[in-house]
Amino acid sequence: MADAETFRNAMAMLAGAVNIITTDGPSGLAGFTATAVCSVTDRPPTLLVCMNRSSFAHQFFQGNNVLCVNVLGASNKEAPALFANREFSMSERFDRVPWGRLVTGSPLLDCAIVSFDCRITNTSTVGSHSIFLCEVQDVRRGTGRGGLVYFNRDYHPVGADAPPSKE
Amino acid sequence: MADAETFRNAMAMLAGAVNIITTDGPSGLAGFTATAVCSVTDRPPTLLVCMNRSSFAHQFFQGNNVLCVNVLGASNKEAPALFANREFSMSERFDRVPWGRLVTGSPLLDCAIVSFDCRITNTSTVGSHSIFLCEVQDVRRGTGRGGLVYFNRDYHPVGADAPPSKE
Repeated sequence: MADAETFRNAMAMLAGAVNIITTDGPSGLAGFTATAVCSVTDRPPTLLVCMNRSSFAHQFFQGNNVLCVNVLGASNKEAPALFANREFSMSERFDRVPWGRLVTGSPLLDCAIVSFDCRITNTSTVGSHSIFLCEVQDVRRGTGRGGLVYFNRDYHPVGADAPPSKE
Repeated sequence: MADAETFRNAMAMLAGAVNIITTDGPSGLAGFTATAVCSVTDRPPTLLVCMNRSSFAHQFFQGNNVLCVNVLGASNKEAPALFANREFSMSERFDRVPWGRLVTGSPLLDCAIVSFDCRITNTSTVGSHSIFLCEVQDVRRGTGRGGLVYFNRDYHPVGADAPPSKE
């Protein structure tokens, strides 16, 4: 079996979109930066999010049972660091970026190129992580054209000059 | 709930690494192009792959219970189309790219920037798709530096000029 460090170093070469995953509800407001988001099926529209169970934010997602995947764009330089820095409290994070809500009440960040507002329909545990299966209740498209990708332990813009995809 | 077309169009804005997922064993040789791969946990080293149950290749993966995730690099222009084109049989696909094997017997493509050789440890069904949970048995790093990303329904190189990450 591959050792954990070899696995992590190799995984750094699997590019991933940079997202801010947010939640709000009875357990409170939370948001964190993550690349571990994956499309599952379109009927019903479903994605999944992997999250470390030992992270401070995990309890909020499990308690609220809703989340919003905010996909960041090429020009979003500050939000990823803000939502990945433990020195900023949850309220400080949300004080620094404009946001609203759709159906579930989870924060939808104005800066996202697209946001998926979801209900968590199933949670499974795999080692240190939870896999949240999420049914997409609503979608909002933002204005940015390019995406933001994390690859080889750095952020990279992608497709910034491409025309917008059809709505 | 979001409708399927809205969901698919929005999902096109979630950038994903381009991978060729391969398998071999009692059920036979198969490979297909996919972005739906996600890191889960490093202890034990685990990733997941989502796959449409109605695809021709699905039976091979389910039968062999092993797979290799071959992450493509910025210079890999032909492999993604080859492994996404139904006009090419499985044997034709593997005749056109150099490949070898690691532990599980699944084809490891020489052109990949990194390959994850895996045993499928759990399969769950969500609507039209299977989620394969995969324990990584071995990893091989290739020579390419840049990654290849699918975003807004097109391929994009990423990080091609970046230095290689540490082994």
